[in-house]
Amino acid sequence: MKRENTEGLQPLKVIPLGGLEQIGMNITVFEYGESIMIVDCGLGFPEDDMYGVDLVIPDVTYLEENADKIKGFVITHGHEDHIGALPYILKKINVPVYATRLTIGIIEHKLEEHGLLDSVVRKVINFGQTITLGEFHVEFVRTNHSIVDAAALAIYTPRGIIVHTGDFKVDYTPVYGDAIDLQRFGELGKKGVLALMCDSTNAERPGFTASERTVGTALRSIFEEQKNKRLIIATFASNVDRVQQIINIAHEYGRKVAVEGRSMVSIIDTAIALERLSVPEDTLTDLDGLRNLPDEKQVLITTGSQGERLAALSRMAAGTHRKVVITPKDAVVFSSHPIPGNEKAITKIINEIFLRGADVIFQDTHVSGHACSEEIKLIYSLTRPKYAFPVHGEYKHLKAQAKIARSLGYDSEHILILHTGDVLEFNDKGAQITDHVQSGFVFVDGLGVGDVGNIVLRDRQRLADDGVMVLVMAMDAENRVVSGPEIVTRGFVYVKEADELLEDIHMLIDDTVVDYYESGAGSERCRLKNSIRDAVGEYIWKRIKRRPMVLPVILEV
Amino acid sequence: MKRENTEGLQPLKVIPLGGLEQIGMNITVFEYGESIMIVDCGLGFPEDDMYGVDLVIPDVTYLEENADKIKGFVITHGHEDHIGALPYILKKINVPVYATRLTIGIIEHKLEEHGLLDSVVRKVINFGQTITLGEFHVEFVRTNHSIVDAAALAIYTPRGIIVHTGDFKVDYTPVYGDAIDLQRFGELGKKGVLALMCDSTNAERPGFTASERTVGTALRSIFEEQKNKRLIIATFASNVDRVQQIINIAHEYGRKVAVEGRSMVSIIDTAIALERLSVPEDTLTDLDGLRNLPDEKQVLITTGSQGERLAALSRMAAGTHRKVVITPKDAVVFSSHPIPGNEKAITKIINEIFLRGADVIFQDTHVSGHACSEEIKLIYSLTRPKYAFPVHGEYKHLKAQAKIARSLGYDSEHILILHTGDVLEFNDKGAQITDHVQSGFVFVDGLGVGDVGNIVLRDRQRLADDGVMVLVMAMDAENRVVSGPEIVTRGFVYVKEADELLEDIHMLIDDTVVDYYESGAGSERCRLKNSIRDAVGEYIWKRIKRRPMVLPVILEV
Repeated sequence: MKRENTEGLQPLKVIPLGGLEQIGMNITVFEYGESIMIVDCGLGFPEDDMYGVDLVIPDVTYLEENADKIKGFVITHGHEDHIGALPYILKKINVPVYATRLTIGIIEHKLEEHGLLDSVVRKVINFGQTITLGEFHVEFVRTNHSIVDAAALAIYTPRGIIVHTGDFKVDYTPVYGDAIDLQRFGELGKKGVLALMCDSTNAERPGFTASERTVGTALRSIFEEQKNKRLIIATFASNVDRVQQIINIAHEYGRKVAVEGRSMVSIIDTAIALERLSVPEDTLTDLDGLRNLPDEKQVLITTGSQGERLAALSRMAAGTHRKVVITPKDAVVFSSHPIPGNEKAITKIINEIFLRGADVIFQDTHVSGHACSEEIKLIYSLTRPKYAFPVHGEYKHLKAQAKIARSLGYDSEHILILHTGDVLEFNDKGAQITDHVQSGFVFVDGLGVGDVGNIVLRDRQRLADDGVMVLVMAMDAENRVVSGPEIVTRGFVYVKEADELLEDIHMLIDDTVVDYYESGAGSERCRLKNSIRDAVGEYIWKRIKRRPMVLPVILEV
Repeated sequence: MKRENTEGLQPLKVIPLGGLEQIGMNITVFEYGESIMIVDCGLGFPEDDMYGVDLVIPDVTYLEENADKIKGFVITHGHEDHIGALPYILKKINVPVYATRLTIGIIEHKLEEHGLLDSVVRKVINFGQTITLGEFHVEFVRTNHSIVDAAALAIYTPRGIIVHTGDFKVDYTPVYGDAIDLQRFGELGKKGVLALMCDSTNAERPGFTASERTVGTALRSIFEEQKNKRLIIATFASNVDRVQQIINIAHEYGRKVAVEGRSMVSIIDTAIALERLSVPEDTLTDLDGLRNLPDEKQVLITTGSQGERLAALSRMAAGTHRKVVITPKDAVVFSSHPIPGNEKAITKIINEIFLRGADVIFQDTHVSGHACSEEIKLIYSLTRPKYAFPVHGEYKHLKAQAKIARSLGYDSEHILILHTGDVLEFNDKGAQITDHVQSGFVFVDGLGVGDVGNIVLRDRQRLADDGVMVLVMAMDAENRVVSGPEIVTRGFVYVKEADELLEDIHMLIDDTVVDYYESGAGSERCRLKNSIRDAVGEYIWKRIKRRPMVLPVILEV
């Protein structure tokens, strides 16, 4: 590590607004003086207890407050957890977007859906090319991942070079394009790297992630064994290399291929248009084209390998797909691993497919797109950063990479584990967390962005657990009940079996109203409503140990 | 297989009322002439979409209709998925319960909680002992499982012997008691076995399940490595053997042990009282006894290894446990594997523990309690049943065992895959499914059993996704709105930000009421309410793509 003359330098700030403490929602702010650049702008998927939430995007208040400094977004690759929040954030902060060819292609499709194609500037960057964003220069370095055109970034700052791997693996024999540019990582290391921000997703796993090509071998043996069956192969919509391999093998075996599932069709179309996927003539068709062929000539590539409820495979398994019926003449291949949390949904689909008499094949038809511990060690050894800065992962993944860094000789002062919102400052004294900015989740529900918050979610959880009981009555100015109480429940009990309970609650409300006014508690309706809510809630809990949301409504007549 | 003289014989019926198509809720009816006996009576845990449901128990309408024939329950072992529904069902059908010693001990604890200890007859049966239940004779055969005193059953019927393995594995070196009685399985095979009902849980896995003792080796090396830390070891409450091993190793290393978590304390107490667990003097203490010792002298065994929200480990990780605070001086060991569906909850706890600075150890400290494919082949080869009858598992597990049976030479006519509620009849013609009886889930929610059904659940799902909007108004006999409409929402939007939306809905309701009466649609309030619900629901969907439950209430004044 060369000694730099740091005189007159300002601090370099790195602020993750997501991507730590969770898988997904990757977004990191780099700030120097009057320049801000942002790496990635991903979305997160809702946790199980975020009822009704469709997507989670980062809170970018800090960016809005510093909008005038922002020079642009630099995107590492075209996965949702790196690009999915872009349309939402670009509506607030319209700055240029820089990425490789396929990544820009996928982003453009999103911008079009959000009506932003005319207003947002974007630029395709080639590997090896360097762009300037204020005080920053950013070089795109080729890596491998489960989508093509994935890039690492060498971010040249006045304080030194920061290498950000993006999501990556080391694949010496990728299906499309070249292997990761390990030489360039070595050159950058020779120049001197201040910090390595490295993907932690697979840091807990020992060894190396296998090459995408090994999947081809496994898939080929399935084609060989299942010669008389239609093959339905489920995989990730964005895994263009996987689709390429399936198409190649299908072509070898004289089968035709159709692609099903909106997101997959869209990405495949983009990949073909941008020459990231090459299809042998007369191999690709659509569902109707497939239907006229004998089973053994058909391959259907579909979304839904994670058990997503509305995806094509779920609908096929449930028998609700408009065009595809699964029969004993099918073999369904899951060319994917379950993402943690999706196991049960996937199992449900597998059971349904078995019930339809088809075979299900799960083994050896997937490899990860993320680097395991030995690959992480390789990148550290090439770049030799001053600071190890694990990113992309839950806390346990960051800790696992920290452990790898320790094994390579880094002490705790040179391993930087941050929390979302932390401001990491590289200054004359080294690297410290000096501040914390507003950060967190913004929920997208339907067309609403940010109008569902924690209070709404807490209410939804309560409603989900025990339902709602609405108690309505009309009162006059003399505090007499002139109509009701009427009791309406939903999600509470099967009302026909609960007549007696409701009868008792009726009487309880009457008593509560009488007691309230006799006690001289005043005529404020809101205090009466609280009394009714408490009395009824307590009664129900005592009687059947449930806590429905009790909503008293009093009309004035 | 010997040929039997079947003259004058009636059909033997086997009717699973649960345990197929899902893990858990095991219960199977055996019926011959006027005799019914039931094997196991377990509960199921609710699926993710069964909001607010605490437990699932089987629909036993068939048993209630045939109550006079029932001779008793025979229970294979003391796990919840085999005994958990007993108290609920015994309240309807009070017949004797037969099981091994620890199993009865655990059942008695349940009966006590439900106030049934005085009214239910139960009997402890030893291995090798045979009981008579009407036309059936049932012999208890020793097996191994993740709880001691697990039994297989040899059910002698006029149509032949049915062997039911219960949950089992083959452990040549169990921690407590003897290995599975393979000789007896062989003898039974020599006599001639009509059908083998065999545990399918691990049928997808190749090879053999390792001995419980291998876990001891792994645990011992953790004690060796973590000499300066307090050890917190999470495992299943009922895994008495695991607890025995931890206590033994703790004693070797001069540590004291406390047990935390209500269910675990209860089972450990029962196991000690029934001499299924032996504790070296002065080794077991309680949390207060532990607290005064240095870290390196402490071992805490706890529940919560599956990330259960209310279990002791969850509370420790979240910092809400009354007596245990996790610090960097702790090493937390998960002596368990995640049950599918629990992965995310477990990961959340691991991240929380890491954040408190403690170490988390996950590797090699668990073995399954279920037989893998080679063990299943062993039991088939010993018993040589005429029919293979896979039980205990989801459909995919049953199919995996069917595949094993096919590999052993069984044709599809001799492999019996049933669905819950199917009536399997062994008669002169062989084995056929001849009927289907009522079966399914009964939901337990709080103190209510069966009062939450599919309508209530559907409402809860709707409420969870998009919340509720209550629209209240008072009308007089001339169809004039005299008060309201008042709008109350919960779980829908953050109301302070939705003023304009609610204002528009207000006007929409007013318009709908006017239109309704002007159109001469009649004065029925319920049709007016439908019109309001439809109009408001459609408006909200168009505007923000959500579907809250809309509840119009009209009071008559």
